[in-house]
Amino acid sequence: MLDVLEYAARNQERYLSQLFEILRIQSVSADPARAGEVRRAGQWVADFLAGTGFEHISVMETGGHPAVYADWLHAPGTPTIMVYGHYDVQPEDPIDKWVIHPTPFEPTVKDGQIWGRGTSDDKAQFMPHIFALEAWLKVRGSLPCNVKIFIEGEEEGGTGGTHDFVRSHRDLLACDAVALSDTSWFSPEQPTIVYALRGISYFQVDVKGPARDLHSGVYGGMLRNPLNAIGQIIAGLQDDQGRLTVPGFYDDVVPLTEVEKDEFRKVAINDDERRKDLGVEALFGEAGYTSLERNWARPSFDVHGIWGGFSGEGSKTVIASEGGFKFSCRLVANQDPEKIRGLVEDHVRHLAPSGVKVDVKGLHGGTPVMVPVDNPFLKAGQDAVEAAFGKRPVLVREGASIPITAVFLEDLNAPSIMVGFGLDSDNIHGPDEHMPLSHFRNGIAACVHLYKAFAGVVIPSHSRVP
Amino acid sequence: MLDVLEYAARNQERYLSQLFEILRIQSVSADPARAGEVRRAGQWVADFLAGTGFEHISVMETGGHPAVYADWLHAPGTPTIMVYGHYDVQPEDPIDKWVIHPTPFEPTVKDGQIWGRGTSDDKAQFMPHIFALEAWLKVRGSLPCNVKIFIEGEEEGGTGGTHDFVRSHRDLLACDAVALSDTSWFSPEQPTIVYALRGISYFQVDVKGPARDLHSGVYGGMLRNPLNAIGQIIAGLQDDQGRLTVPGFYDDVVPLTEVEKDEFRKVAINDDERRKDLGVEALFGEAGYTSLERNWARPSFDVHGIWGGFSGEGSKTVIASEGGFKFSCRLVANQDPEKIRGLVEDHVRHLAPSGVKVDVKGLHGGTPVMVPVDNPFLKAGQDAVEAAFGKRPVLVREGASIPITAVFLEDLNAPSIMVGFGLDSDNIHGPDEHMPLSHFRNGIAACVHLYKAFAGVVIPSHSRVP
Repeated sequence: MLDVLEYAARNQERYLSQLFEILRIQSVSADPARAGEVRRAGQWVADFLAGTGFEHISVMETGGHPAVYADWLHAPGTPTIMVYGHYDVQPEDPIDKWVIHPTPFEPTVKDGQIWGRGTSDDKAQFMPHIFALEAWLKVRGSLPCNVKIFIEGEEEGGTGGTHDFVRSHRDLLACDAVALSDTSWFSPEQPTIVYALRGISYFQVDVKGPARDLHSGVYGGMLRNPLNAIGQIIAGLQDDQGRLTVPGFYDDVVPLTEVEKDEFRKVAINDDERRKDLGVEALFGEAGYTSLERNWARPSFDVHGIWGGFSGEGSKTVIASEGGFKFSCRLVANQDPEKIRGLVEDHVRHLAPSGVKVDVKGLHGGTPVMVPVDNPFLKAGQDAVEAAFGKRPVLVREGASIPITAVFLEDLNAPSIMVGFGLDSDNIHGPDEHMPLSHFRNGIAACVHLYKAFAGVVIPSHSRVP
Repeated sequence: MLDVLEYAARNQERYLSQLFEILRIQSVSADPARAGEVRRAGQWVADFLAGTGFEHISVMETGGHPAVYADWLHAPGTPTIMVYGHYDVQPEDPIDKWVIHPTPFEPTVKDGQIWGRGTSDDKAQFMPHIFALEAWLKVRGSLPCNVKIFIEGEEEGGTGGTHDFVRSHRDLLACDAVALSDTSWFSPEQPTIVYALRGISYFQVDVKGPARDLHSGVYGGMLRNPLNAIGQIIAGLQDDQGRLTVPGFYDDVVPLTEVEKDEFRKVAINDDERRKDLGVEALFGEAGYTSLERNWARPSFDVHGIWGGFSGEGSKTVIASEGGFKFSCRLVANQDPEKIRGLVEDHVRHLAPSGVKVDVKGLHGGTPVMVPVDNPFLKAGQDAVEAAFGKRPVLVREGASIPITAVFLEDLNAPSIMVGFGLDSDNIHGPDEHMPLSHFRNGIAACVHLYKAFAGVVIPSHSRVP
């Protein structure tokens, strides 16, 4: 594959120049005024693919912002890989905080970094896949395996249109695995591949007491105060380690293995530095786990907001007629958000004290995803990144969700191989977003390796290869 | 004393007309724009007293709104009674809710009620004392006992100036008992006299977690969430009966006697009606007490406000950097608010979980007051009201505070005899405030009896009579 790598190496200036073209498009999906720009970025991807040998290139309507589809399915007997990414970006606000690079949509290279909104998240991460696939097609006239391209336009501020599109286009998008680069490494020295993300069950609880606000002198002691009750319910949901007390909550949790813990130790964060960065006197959580293990591989319980009564200056002796709170449980494989929703709602109702009306409702759920650490696509990803970057990636998890990976798992039965090239320090979503130029360039080389490595994975007989 | 009662009966039209004069003055103490009106109401009282025989009549500066003082101290060997009341009133807002009587400051009599802002609270309640004392002076040229008059102007929206004035004028205001009419009866059929009010200790708790808001996916499980902690602290302050769990909290509580419980039963509210009025499925509180007993004679714990994080529509997965809540404990005799403040603050700090910074501070305190049920001034009050209204008043407590009664107790060592003439249904503080005309008229007669009855109380040798 040296010929393909050499072609890629010779075209680096063109790749950078083309990356700059799409970086200049203000594809801010959360801003309705720039919906046209979002579409223009999708069209740019489609136009690029038009010259490469990909087929069925199409800017597809999803109900939300459009998604770009293309495929090349002429490698019988090999797996079908879907490249996923997103061409939309976060808003650039607050623009006055862009100090190192004051022009978010006029990219530049400085101090070894590519600066601009949408570099690390996600244009300079997904384009390496497309450039690498173009290189294979230009040099060899074919790809090592079957490939479908699916780049969406509303990852950063979605209507859910893309998710619905995936659910209603299972045949079009059928694949053996999804390759995506939308995650980042802890440090430039240690590549990582993410094999698991947490899910979520999010709830709102409304507690109603008396029909009107009451004076606590005139009524205090006669009836249940809904804000007192809120404290009792929140306290009743957790034990003194912060574990959920919901019966059955942990039943389906897949225990963390020693193999996984060993991998995590290779990127172990320093708890003391983390503590200082967060500005707290002590980290806290479930006994028997490191802080990374708790965040990546254990459920967590967080109250997100709490309200009711008087919060102004001074003292008002009111018994508020109502209050409420929002909370979520982060989930890990193999917890099912729907099952958890039922368990949590039941438990909140069980905790509800007499004399107040407690209404609990699940606001949304997201399924946790996990690719088994011995999955051959995952190993192919590790091989490819090691070949390009010179160091074998550690297998890690993340505490947050990438919701579409759950859709790929649920609706396409496809594991997501999260081969990220960015760094945690890239400041995605914030001002002065950037990404190392070397990671963009090595990323292209890694992707040249990646599709070759995927081609060698023996796929089961029920593969969806056409 | 028939001559005095007859004089009072003959002068009822004048009394009503003079009451209307002061009711027309918009003495809203919470409205800085009407400070001049407040002062004018005080001056009206002083001007009225000028023609009666009272001495040392003065509109006194307090630092806040002025107070009116006068005295008549020519009955050696009798107790000295201080008449207390307030000539300021609540704001009339919302004016469009005054439906039965749309002109709050243009009083009228309709359907047997006097309508207007400041009728029941407190002009038509304190003026009967002044009219009755005028009657004694006009008819007999003297009063049955020594009397000081102290009518303030900032009870409804105070700066604390009047409290400071009392504290710094102990000699001027020295007395054996305070007579005040600023409370109300449950029903027109049953007069009541209030012998005890609860006190209060009011607190704010601020809970600080991480230095910045965090994403609950990226950090959840690593650290203590301050809103989770708020729930734990609130829950930790109460047991499942709503009793405070603060060590030592109940040590000084004077137990309710069977005599008191018997009195309470005479005005026992119907719990089911109360429940329906409040719109709750069940009343709630400490076992072994009726709802009235809990509200009147037992401490209570109420969270007044709670805040932190995201309370908008939908779901935001934030770990807020901080949140807080306000709460108070209502106190009963003989709890000391300063001692309670220390106990509660210690317990909140004890409950504060690791990993968050918990700051608790007492915002204000008020001492509970209780006049022993066998106090002779209390009995004199019962005799007087029975003589005028034809039914012996029941001795009751109230769950709320009248803070100045604590000042009278602490600084003047004087019990407050709370001989109210209003009704719970008078809608004080709300629109369409009113008071039965018959209660105003019988109130004057009751006050004619009252000062005669006070005169018969044998006072201890250390009495402050001049």
